[in-house]
Amino acid sequence: MKGDKRAVTLLSGGLDSATCLALAVADGFAVTALSFAYGQKARTELDAASRVAAAFGARDHRVVRLDRDAFLGSALTDAIPVPKGGGSGGIPVTYVPARNTVFLAYGLAAAESLDADAVYIGVNSVDYSGYPDCRPEFIAAFRRMADLATKRAVEGRAIDIRAPLQDLGKGDIIRLGLSLGVDYSLTVSCYDPDDDGRACGACESCRLRREGFLAIGTPDPTRYVPGFAPGAE
Amino acid sequence: MKGDKRAVTLLSGGLDSATCLALAVADGFAVTALSFAYGQKARTELDAASRVAAAFGARDHRVVRLDRDAFLGSALTDAIPVPKGGGSGGIPVTYVPARNTVFLAYGLAAAESLDADAVYIGVNSVDYSGYPDCRPEFIAAFRRMADLATKRAVEGRAIDIRAPLQDLGKGDIIRLGLSLGVDYSLTVSCYDPDDDGRACGACESCRLRREGFLAIGTPDPTRYVPGFAPGAE
Repeated sequence: MKGDKRAVTLLSGGLDSATCLALAVADGFAVTALSFAYGQKARTELDAASRVAAAFGARDHRVVRLDRDAFLGSALTDAIPVPKGGGSGGIPVTYVPARNTVFLAYGLAAAESLDADAVYIGVNSVDYSGYPDCRPEFIAAFRRMADLATKRAVEGRAIDIRAPLQDLGKGDIIRLGLSLGVDYSLTVSCYDPDDDGRACGACESCRLRREGFLAIGTPDPTRYVPGFAPGAE
Repeated sequence: MKGDKRAVTLLSGGLDSATCLALAVADGFAVTALSFAYGQKARTELDAASRVAAAFGARDHRVVRLDRDAFLGSALTDAIPVPKGGGSGGIPVTYVPARNTVFLAYGLAAAESLDADAVYIGVNSVDYSGYPDCRPEFIAAFRRMADLATKRAVEGRAIDIRAPLQDLGKGDIIRLGLSLGVDYSLTVSCYDPDDDGRACGACESCRLRREGFLAIGTPDPTRYVPGFAPGAE
């Protein structure tokens, strides 16, 4: 039941962005999902994004190829090991330089090209402890910039930057997504999955996801690599 | 005489960005010039950018390929005629959706990857009458966003967004560039050049450039298409 209202949703194929896509659809938008190939090691992310876009009612799904040169110096793109176990505090080595700035900028351009009213991004309170470009003050500053950046803005129809999961914890996000019919078995959160898209169970992102399901007492549909037993570590 | 201080300069190959590059070099930076291939019709722009980067002392020059899908609906990328003669007021059809937002976002990411201190952009007072993303308030808002976006910012070393030509007219910019040794015959401003990179003489960008040289009484080194006589139209 898609209307004429359009929105762009940034879609990594993880739990948060999948929930965000479901929310945008629930808000009545015909959604263009936008994923990025920027040299990340976890290409299963993009496969998951395609499945999620198809399953959750996106109108279309675009994968934008970004020049890898701009995104060096991160464990997600370089030959730096993804850390296992708890976070060390501070900014994780999985930080990618100005990534959300580039993703949102691209989302803004795509939205104006499509005459879309909003760009959705799935940043949330769990992430913003570590990543500078997940913080509410960053999103607010990007929104103020976007309010001046486009022809639509000058015409009084600025494209809205929406981060509807901003204040939610992982459990709240999962509960919200389940209420919208999200099938989390299609999503991949792991920073270091195997070739079959199975989660390592040990990285920070796996840990947060598992704790989220645990917190609300819901079975975790994540497929783990052989030998990893959730709850037994 | 390049030091260790690094900066990124956005470089279109036109008059303004060439001047901006010369300024960044004069400011003592080892400059990485960043150009973008986004489906623009005037590919001679990129050839000019390469010449300018080599001639004006850039440390290196990168051409980033952007996905054309995000930049539809402009006379610079689509089959919409480039208007000839004076501007009509309002936002020109040569506006490209959120272009400077994307370019600056990419510049910010490249700067952080390179551990560069600043991103230079050649927007100026002549442009900002028409393009929303050339206005001083847009640049200021982008700067405030960048102050929150990066790991460097969190560490108290935010990457500075510099628009040093912001308050200058075309004549002032040319005068400044000449004082820095810029050879404007290497630059191409025209929106609609021929295959040899010769300017049409009739588009808005050609008109502004010609008026700039005229205003300061300096010979215009621009190569025009056969049949176009500056000053005779």
